[in-house]
Amino acid sequence: MTNKIVKKIYYHDTDSGGVVYYANYLKYFEEARTEFLKDRGIDIKELVKENIMFVVRHVDIDYKSRACYGDILDILTTITDKTKVTLNFIHEAKRHDTLLVIANTQLVCVDNNFKPMAIPEKIMKNL
Amino acid sequence: MTNKIVKKIYYHDTDSGGVVYYANYLKYFEEARTEFLKDRGIDIKELVKENIMFVVRHVDIDYKSRACYGDILDILTTITDKTKVTLNFIHEAKRHDTLLVIANTQLVCVDNNFKPMAIPEKIMKNL
Amino acid sequence: MTNKIVKKIYYHDTDSGGVVYYANYLKYFEEARTEFLKDRGIDIKELVKENIMFVVRHVDIDYKSRACYGDILDILTTITDKTKVTLNFIHEAKRHDTLLVIANTQLVCVDNNFKPMAIPEKIMKNL
Amino acid sequence: MTNKIVKKIYYHDTDSGGVVYYANYLKYFEEARTEFLKDRGIDIKELVKENIMFVVRHVDIDYKSRACYGDILDILTTITDKTKVTLNFIHEAKRHDTLLVIANTQLVCVDNNFKPMAIPEKIMKNL
Repeated sequence: MTNKIVKKIYYHDTDSGGVVYYANYLKYFEEARTEFLKDRGIDIKELVKENIMFVVRHVDIDYKSRACYGDILDILTTITDKTKVTLNFIHEAKRHDTLLVIANTQLVCVDNNFKPMAIPEKIMKNL
Repeated sequence: MTNKIVKKIYYHDTDSGGVVYYANYLKYFEEARTEFLKDRGIDIKELVKENIMFVVRHVDIDYKSRACYGDILDILTTITDKTKVTLNFIHEAKRHDTLLVIANTQLVCVDNNFKPMAIPEKIMKNL
Repeated sequence: MTNKIVKKIYYHDTDSGGVVYYANYLKYFEEARTEFLKDRGIDIKELVKENIMFVVRHVDIDYKSRACYGDILDILTTITDKTKVTLNFIHEAKRHDTLLVIANTQLVCVDNNFKPMAIPEKIMKNL
Repeated sequence: MTNKIVKKIYYHDTDSGGVVYYANYLKYFEEARTEFLKDRGIDIKELVKENIMFVVRHVDIDYKSRACYGDILDILTTITDKTKVTLNFIHEAKRHDTLLVIANTQLVCVDNNFKPMAIPEKIMKNL
């Protein structure tokens, strides 16, 4: 039940060290989570209209190898754990079979005052 | 009546061409306009609460030379023209006396539906 | 001879005004030019190895309407003019038939010292 | 021996959720480490010329509360641990006395082939 998105690396992704800037992986993982949820019928944009948001509470990220301009990365996403109010994702950024970056991310379901709330059943049943 | 802010260039500003990525100057110019207005008693954050925003309608930007990691840039900002609903700024990014980038920017005053509106007199009188 | 890429808007593209941040269109246009050239057999990554780069000298960009989270944009790119050392592109960002942003961009061919050079014939013949 | 930098939040820092985008804290922490080292006489730009770089191997980041447009944050940085080849930093992003984000970051010293190397004594003695 892994979702895969493909990211091509452009100049705006890189820094003058010649590699993808370390913060940018968090952007790819945001995109990956969005598509992971969309594949399961969960549309973040619609949830916002109902005052339901998922915000990132924790990220634990390991940089094992670097990616460069022109590289094409697979971003693989899985849910590893869920509680009443949180979802845990694992993301891997790979170039072919080489694991470059791996991250555990915890999201918490909040209302429009950023107060934690139970993940609605209509979401939970699809995960 | 020029405002100056100072920007130091970090890795996140650069790309793997070894220079500041061209889009990032628009971020520095946003910061510069904010501080230019603040110096004149105009607080964008407060205006938003009154449903008054300034949005960028046009940018004309010339890249004359490049900036690199560790450079310290002066961002100079002046108002060149104003109409009932628009403000025109000129921004210069300089390293010491060398002009690197120059931009003309037109902002339009809008309400919270992004509809153009007259710039309130309390703002206009300070510009 | 227009190239089209499709960009979906994620949170990292937007700002707290609720719209795509104005500098980010320049990232989409970089991606679009890269793919435009690739469609014509021109690989920027390979050119860099031969000390040939294209750098942006000028951008003239008009913001006509805004894009929001979840929007799907078409980025359309065409070459409008070329000289011995420069290429002029026009980029349009559209949501369905609505033109949101249009930009003219001039790139100049430079060597690895950022000195302008004639665009090699092997590139020119494909444009 | 804590270093403090001050970051004001502009539109480009935020997303349409109305808060600072989660990846951007990693940019502030890069800036903070650079200034931490500079305060100790260690200039990253000079080290690169000697083929010495520090790259991020691991980040563990906790998002406790959110920051918004116009906020002014203190970014506090300390070294918590060092080995022959690694440096561990702790970064805190605070708004006045409120801790918003806290991160542990591990950097590894590498040569220009990204191969780990012993941190030179001239650096170590200042830390």
